[in-house]
Amino acid sequence: MTHRIAVVGYGNIGQYAVEAVQASPDFELAGVVRRTTGEKPNALAGVTVTDDVTTLGQVDVALLCTPTRRVPETAKHYLGLGINTVDSFDTHTAILDLRRELMPVAQANHAVSIISAGWDPGSDSVIRTLLEACAPKGLTYTNFGPGMSMGHTVVAKGVDGVVGALSLTIPLGTGLHRRVVYVELAPDATLDAVSTAIKADPYFAHDETHVIAVPSIDAVEDKGHGVDLVRRGVSGRTDNQTFEFTMRINNPALTSQIMLGAARATFRQQPGVYTLPEVPPLDLLPGDREELIARLV
Amino acid sequence: MTHRIAVVGYGNIGQYAVEAVQASPDFELAGVVRRTTGEKPNALAGVTVTDDVTTLGQVDVALLCTPTRRVPETAKHYLGLGINTVDSFDTHTAILDLRRELMPVAQANHAVSIISAGWDPGSDSVIRTLLEACAPKGLTYTNFGPGMSMGHTVVAKGVDGVVGALSLTIPLGTGLHRRVVYVELAPDATLDAVSTAIKADPYFAHDETHVIAVPSIDAVEDKGHGVDLVRRGVSGRTDNQTFEFTMRINNPALTSQIMLGAARATFRQQPGVYTLPEVPPLDLLPGDREELIARLV
Repeated sequence: MTHRIAVVGYGNIGQYAVEAVQASPDFELAGVVRRTTGEKPNALAGVTVTDDVTTLGQVDVALLCTPTRRVPETAKHYLGLGINTVDSFDTHTAILDLRRELMPVAQANHAVSIISAGWDPGSDSVIRTLLEACAPKGLTYTNFGPGMSMGHTVVAKGVDGVVGALSLTIPLGTGLHRRVVYVELAPDATLDAVSTAIKADPYFAHDETHVIAVPSIDAVEDKGHGVDLVRRGVSGRTDNQTFEFTMRINNPALTSQIMLGAARATFRQQPGVYTLPEVPPLDLLPGDREELIARLV
Repeated sequence: MTHRIAVVGYGNIGQYAVEAVQASPDFELAGVVRRTTGEKPNALAGVTVTDDVTTLGQVDVALLCTPTRRVPETAKHYLGLGINTVDSFDTHTAILDLRRELMPVAQANHAVSIISAGWDPGSDSVIRTLLEACAPKGLTYTNFGPGMSMGHTVVAKGVDGVVGALSLTIPLGTGLHRRVVYVELAPDATLDAVSTAIKADPYFAHDETHVIAVPSIDAVEDKGHGVDLVRRGVSGRTDNQTFEFTMRINNPALTSQIMLGAARATFRQQPGVYTLPEVPPLDLLPGDREELIARLV
């Protein structure tokens, strides 16, 4: 069965989301929803672009590829229209609040929302949950990078005298990280002043941070990222059970692909709001259920 | 809420299952069910041991720690009594048949069965499913070991002239394996004859196999095992997404711990039969759901 899907937002994740939808066997792209619809990028040739989802006809599910801060209001709007939603809301400390905020809206409109469904939060959360079931006592460390942190990059870009920025997250192990921030300076800016301002920001103040000037951010930017997730713990009374999950990935490509799997899963859940560990992993995949079980289990 | 649980069978997995139950915050051990109840091991002091589960009073769920070949009949017996079941049935090619065979029994008795809920099949199956959602096009390789293969060890033990055996699985990468079989020979046996017989068995005939005589199997046996699960594939139109999951674990300790998580999850599913990728991972864990989401997502 084919479901009609809308991609909401056309930044980094939205662009890759369109590719993921087009590469999928079971979704039809209803269109892309943007706040401004002036000039159409080449990649959207043949795709309907609109600022109003209601002009797209039947839409079963929407991928919310907006900045995290706009997810709550956007999700409520779409759920209010009876459209399932998926987002990659990534403020870890606010996920539970988002779940509570959207729950009554989803239920009242008989819709399903799967939230924070990227890779962290998202697929990493599933791994963390599974590994805690494997060894209930113990410690899990999620080590990010080396790779570009979107959130830290935005903050560094906002500093006076910064024309462009790239904030890399460097893993030090046991969940600790170093920040290496590359900056392209304005003609009248000094590295000292910019470095001091960046290190004073709450985003950077708690981590070892290095600020380095480069002539061009465009020349050093790379969307690669990675994770090294480690758990050591106890199964029953047996110590030293050791687990490690690593990946090297294109960040927005993976984020949007997982969101698309979550979009598929919305059609198998009861009305309500779910994080990824609350969803059966098999629901993320297309195709015949028994064939999947025979092949993957 | 505390659920009463029975451990059925007291071999390798059953012994570790009792430890996992005793270490858990939310299960009460109703008892151990064995076919023969003569001499009670020290580890079962204070535990009720019986050959008839109906003497244990209320039992909500049973961990079937029997050999794989006895799982189908045992599961049907317990489901027929309205008791949820969990097993670690590990014949990969027969899992779908087991699911079909148990489904009407579980549904008729309003019970839940989670099958093949060890580490492979089991937690590895969840990882394989999740990684296919992350990169739908690509190849997954599950590399086992180095570690003891229970099935191959049993076959080697059955060969004439073999007093004891230990079959190690050695990973060669890309899902290929070497078998190294340590044998303790009977006084009148020759290594040549035993080696020829082992290599001719269908369990070994398709793999590179080495047979090595040792004076004592007991001196070399170790329950450690491991896996190295690799997927490389495509997210949307982006190649070279790379994922790897590795673990080094005590085999029966991990198997029984995952089974216990599945036992917990039976109480949150509709009547029927499920493999582990069909179960929300969060259902495997005890404790307050919102606390788990805030901590793990």
